[in-house]
Amino acid sequence: MTSAQKTGLVVTAHPGDFVWRAAGAISLHVQKGYRVKIVCLAYGERGESQWAWKKPGVAMADVKRQRHDESAQAAQILGAEIEFFDAGDYPLRLSEEMLYRLVDIYREVQPSFVLTHASADPYNGDHPEASRFAQEARVIAQAAGHKPDPSRAYSAPPVFLFEPHQPEQCEFRPNVILNIDPVWELKRKAFEVLAAQKHLWEYYTRVALNRGLQGSRNSGRPMTYAEAYQRVFPDVVEELR
Amino acid sequence: MTSAQKTGLVVTAHPGDFVWRAAGAISLHVQKGYRVKIVCLAYGERGESQWAWKKPGVAMADVKRQRHDESAQAAQILGAEIEFFDAGDYPLRLSEEMLYRLVDIYREVQPSFVLTHASADPYNGDHPEASRFAQEARVIAQAAGHKPDPSRAYSAPPVFLFEPHQPEQCEFRPNVILNIDPVWELKRKAFEVLAAQKHLWEYYTRVALNRGLQGSRNSGRPMTYAEAYQRVFPDVVEELR
Amino acid sequence: MTSAQKTGLVVTAHPGDFVWRAAGAISLHVQKGYRVKIVCLAYGERGESQWAWKKPGVAMADVKRQRHDESAQAAQILGAEIEFFDAGDYPLRLSEEMLYRLVDIYREVQPSFVLTHASADPYNGDHPEASRFAQEARVIAQAAGHKPDPSRAYSAPPVFLFEPHQPEQCEFRPNVILNIDPVWELKRKAFEVLAAQKHLWEYYTRVALNRGLQGSRNSGRPMTYAEAYQRVFPDVVEELR
Amino acid sequence: MTSAQKTGLVVTAHPGDFVWRAAGAISLHVQKGYRVKIVCLAYGERGESQWAWKKPGVAMADVKRQRHDESAQAAQILGAEIEFFDAGDYPLRLSEEMLYRLVDIYREVQPSFVLTHASADPYNGDHPEASRFAQEARVIAQAAGHKPDPSRAYSAPPVFLFEPHQPEQCEFRPNVILNIDPVWELKRKAFEVLAAQKHLWEYYTRVALNRGLQGSRNSGRPMTYAEAYQRVFPDVVEELR
Amino acid sequence: MTSAQKTGLVVTAHPGDFVWRAAGAISLHVQKGYRVKIVCLAYGERGESQWAWKKPGVAMADVKRQRHDESAQAAQILGAEIEFFDAGDYPLRLSEEMLYRLVDIYREVQPSFVLTHASADPYNGDHPEASRFAQEARVIAQAAGHKPDPSRAYSAPPVFLFEPHQPEQCEFRPNVILNIDPVWELKRKAFEVLAAQKHLWEYYTRVALNRGLQGSRNSGRPMTYAEAYQRVFPDVVEELR
Amino acid sequence: MTSAQKTGLVVTAHPGDFVWRAAGAISLHVQKGYRVKIVCLAYGERGESQWAWKKPGVAMADVKRQRHDESAQAAQILGAEIEFFDAGDYPLRLSEEMLYRLVDIYREVQPSFVLTHASADPYNGDHPEASRFAQEARVIAQAAGHKPDPSRAYSAPPVFLFEPHQPEQCEFRPNVILNIDPVWELKRKAFEVLAAQKHLWEYYTRVALNRGLQGSRNSGRPMTYAEAYQRVFPDVVEELR
Repeated sequence: MTSAQKTGLVVTAHPGDFVWRAAGAISLHVQKGYRVKIVCLAYGERGESQWAWKKPGVAMADVKRQRHDESAQAAQILGAEIEFFDAGDYPLRLSEEMLYRLVDIYREVQPSFVLTHASADPYNGDHPEASRFAQEARVIAQAAGHKPDPSRAYSAPPVFLFEPHQPEQCEFRPNVILNIDPVWELKRKAFEVLAAQKHLWEYYTRVALNRGLQGSRNSGRPMTYAEAYQRVFPDVVEELR
Repeated sequence: MTSAQKTGLVVTAHPGDFVWRAAGAISLHVQKGYRVKIVCLAYGERGESQWAWKKPGVAMADVKRQRHDESAQAAQILGAEIEFFDAGDYPLRLSEEMLYRLVDIYREVQPSFVLTHASADPYNGDHPEASRFAQEARVIAQAAGHKPDPSRAYSAPPVFLFEPHQPEQCEFRPNVILNIDPVWELKRKAFEVLAAQKHLWEYYTRVALNRGLQGSRNSGRPMTYAEAYQRVFPDVVEELR
Repeated sequence: MTSAQKTGLVVTAHPGDFVWRAAGAISLHVQKGYRVKIVCLAYGERGESQWAWKKPGVAMADVKRQRHDESAQAAQILGAEIEFFDAGDYPLRLSEEMLYRLVDIYREVQPSFVLTHASADPYNGDHPEASRFAQEARVIAQAAGHKPDPSRAYSAPPVFLFEPHQPEQCEFRPNVILNIDPVWELKRKAFEVLAAQKHLWEYYTRVALNRGLQGSRNSGRPMTYAEAYQRVFPDVVEELR
Repeated sequence: MTSAQKTGLVVTAHPGDFVWRAAGAISLHVQKGYRVKIVCLAYGERGESQWAWKKPGVAMADVKRQRHDESAQAAQILGAEIEFFDAGDYPLRLSEEMLYRLVDIYREVQPSFVLTHASADPYNGDHPEASRFAQEARVIAQAAGHKPDPSRAYSAPPVFLFEPHQPEQCEFRPNVILNIDPVWELKRKAFEVLAAQKHLWEYYTRVALNRGLQGSRNSGRPMTYAEAYQRVFPDVVEELR
Repeated sequence: MTSAQKTGLVVTAHPGDFVWRAAGAISLHVQKGYRVKIVCLAYGERGESQWAWKKPGVAMADVKRQRHDESAQAAQILGAEIEFFDAGDYPLRLSEEMLYRLVDIYREVQPSFVLTHASADPYNGDHPEASRFAQEARVIAQAAGHKPDPSRAYSAPPVFLFEPHQPEQCEFRPNVILNIDPVWELKRKAFEVLAAQKHLWEYYTRVALNRGLQGSRNSGRPMTYAEAYQRVFPDVVEELR
Repeated sequence: MTSAQKTGLVVTAHPGDFVWRAAGAISLHVQKGYRVKIVCLAYGERGESQWAWKKPGVAMADVKRQRHDESAQAAQILGAEIEFFDAGDYPLRLSEEMLYRLVDIYREVQPSFVLTHASADPYNGDHPEASRFAQEARVIAQAAGHKPDPSRAYSAPPVFLFEPHQPEQCEFRPNVILNIDPVWELKRKAFEVLAAQKHLWEYYTRVALNRGLQGSRNSGRPMTYAEAYQRVFPDVVEELR
């Protein structure tokens, strides 16, 4: 990696989230030469591993290991790095130590963009908590007085919220549609790593197709698959389009 | 109680809340054969017992006991069970232990519906905190990996937010009006247990009458007394009406 | 039809709208014994018939006839009556005469529910205009002094807004999910009448499947296909569920 | 009237509206020495005179006369002037001529405040239409090039929206509570002129009492009866309170 | 102009609007080689020419001519074409004929972007009316059945709402900040054509400076002057930034 | 100070906030004879002291001292008292002990108004946290059972949110404009104490001028400098204006 390499950072509550919601963006930017790092706050071991708990006597450590391995494999397919915080899920409980670890990651990665959850989700309190945490760390990372180093300047990257499971209930208002046609096959391959959630493979394939048609309608350009995002901060531009 | 008995769960910050805001729903469903359980998080001992503190030298324990007894009596009139968490009020401070106790209650009661506070209330921070807590516990209770028991499946019940004191200031948008004519006398009787708050007896009688007239206008059916609720999740139906 | 027969009214801007957005509700209620009447305000001849205009020299009257025939056939498949207002599209221009015709229809049909468009749609001004018109007629229809007849009383039915093409851009917030499994095959058959819009067959099949999964998640009941609606007025109930 | 007399303008769709929603403000300011003028756009003859139409064979002219007389009597009780536009109701249809008449009234009265309807009301399209009309005339009235008279300057008065029948459904967010204790008896007397709507006397008495209690809670000052308003434009002040 | 030239369209209610709110975008894109066309719906002769009416006996035709000449001069400074609709202001009254003229302009210009007013403005009803009109024409222009020509395809351009005078009162939520440093001097020169409104020269210079600082903070890039816009439709992109 | 003296309380996250956002209100009320107390929760030592950290080897204690001294000097210029909580910034971490200290201050000061931050700020998590904290303490301070003293009654003062750096991104909707012409020179002098942030002197001078022009437009009264506020609770009044 040279200093000129662009980078992206993804902060997700659980493993499925970066796969269903952002795998297109991740692999697309990897293909464009970005370094992309995923921070996976919890393994989804309690709340998003229903199938695993159907086996009597299964241990928490086994469920976590299974989700860890799946996540690592999905990240590898997408070409991204992944770091696990193992914060526990349902509820996600994030410590100050984790906050400062994420701050360090911001400073080390210096991302061009950050992807995280929507700010509300009545179905899943871990999601808005992860979003709040990712945004708090972003602000601290650019504070000159945090681990001061006068030789460096930090600026805060744009934040894009990825699509929740039931967008209208989460006050999700997409204002960016990202064409993921070049990487659709990789996104689908990452789906298939999550072997126990086959019904969601099809659900999120349909989401990608419908966002693709919307992208096509909004732009007049052909497009089959897309991901929807909500940009949090104004887009600063040199030309309107 | 047979396994077929329907149940309801009410999570309130203070004693007055379940009386003024939800006593109609509670006794109506009790009359329909539901088991209804109230979780009363605090006694309202500091912030909602003004009259008690006018007596010089009164002790906190006395105030709590008085509110406990009133609440228990009101619950009895309505035919509901009640459990006190004694979390303290102004501010309400809810521990992880209380959270897991509430999760256990969700699993034991398996409610058909949950009633709790609106999500905002600039007059009273305890109210949105109680609502957040009730909703967090609801999500955890249906996580397969929380105290896993492969022999059982849990699903998350619908949530109805009850009417705050000043609805428009609390972003309360009622989308359900419940006819409480069959139980009005019981609701009024429960009011009268709260002997020190006579001015609120009349206030909430007027609220019930006005919501009743609105219910009548919206449905074309005669109705005198009603309670207003805000449904949080979509209503899943087999027929439109 | 006896006076006891329940009825439904659907007010749509263009033919495709009642097919893509409400065909499930229409045929479901027909199967339940409702009389359902569709008022189709325009033929979509200018703005929603792109394929027809690709044939050089085609006349407006031909396009309208083609859309009329398709619409009539789709309505027949669903078991509904249909009336055309031929108001013109892009822009939809509704006259006072049409308003009073719709008022008469409200009074003749006395619907148990009304289905119409969402109140905003930046992609298509005809849609909110149709919604405004349907709601204005609803209010006039229950005015005692409009064509007064002291022997009759009118009340205003509940209104359900059906799902627009890009829901989040139209401020569409679904709060009702209707299970349409019993009639899915009929809805799909109605799609196929709109022979020139094959890409939308698949789009709206995916919408139905995704709303079905959401319905299933929100209710805990199995469900494959659903339609989403936004209820405009409070739901007046005798029991919470 | 001297040039120093303060004035108020009230623009209502139907007679009941100024009585139920603004009679307190009207008579309070009359008592303070203001000249208050009511513009009543329609008689509510079709949509708000149900009782009148129960008499077989009643003529439109009779209904209008009855509502005219009631309105004039109520205005007299409150000490206000009243002018009728007879624009027709359900639907209210306002002409350009009426618009310019209202502009002239603004210029003649030069009100210190304007009271009118909320901007949304799904129950009654006449209400937002009256509000839009009142606000359009206000802007035109201060345009220097409308009937130019270089010797005079006009400024646009603050607008207060009065409380609709079902406030939360009308996106009504009260931010002003007006103490009407000094004139409550007059407001009630005006109610009683509307002899056929006894059920609303009690409804709006309860609204006044509940807004009074809210006023008392928000200010810490004793108060029994109040009216709620939504201020449209910022309040420009010399001191915070 | 070759077919490859990019184009922009600006639809404003009054002359001042394109100068204060969009002169930066206009001249910036002209400098980039775009053809930019301004449609100025009214001359602001009644509502935005206070100074002109201070001269006793001035005629409407004179005021219009003066505003016409100023506008033409400002457009020339910015390098844009301008067409006047002379629809009248306070109130702006737009005919069907004007609508179809604007539709023709959309088809002739085929803009890459459209700039117009925010959708709400309680201070000035002409502004949202102009925005509604610009957006209605945009939708009609891409309807295949409007003046059908099978040899051509039309798509609808992105719409950017420019900044109103009091943004928060107009529900204006800027999500695009355009750097106008390269053309600031031209924007300021266009201000100075509006000789009678010197106080607004300074006001909108301050707006440009403050938006510039915000643009700089949001992007981390140096910038002095900017214009804020609200994008109506999702931004369809191939890369996040 | 006699018991009749009016008072104001200002709760800010960092030193700059009370200077840029509220210095006008502070010194204006001091001039009117109010006692005004500022509670400054953190020194802004990490996140709002960029210039200080450019000096290699500077210590946290030095930065805090510098900010303390500047703040004390600015408060002195404005005529206000100031108390520092030294809670730490980026992130602001407020303890229960601090909460109860603020409650004591509310009781001691008994403010006529409270000024604090807006409830959202995606650029700076300390700001909404300070606002939440100020509002929580306000509610506790009026609870009779908190440090009960039957001889005294407490009521909760109105809250005004001051203007954030990028108002539209913070859901800031100003509904109060305060004329600060009488004290502008003092506000400007307080700016100049913050010697390292010269670019903000000009930014906030422009904000004051633009709010001044808006105040003038909304009131019809001459005004040059103003501050914008958002009132949280309804304004309870005896007269409309």
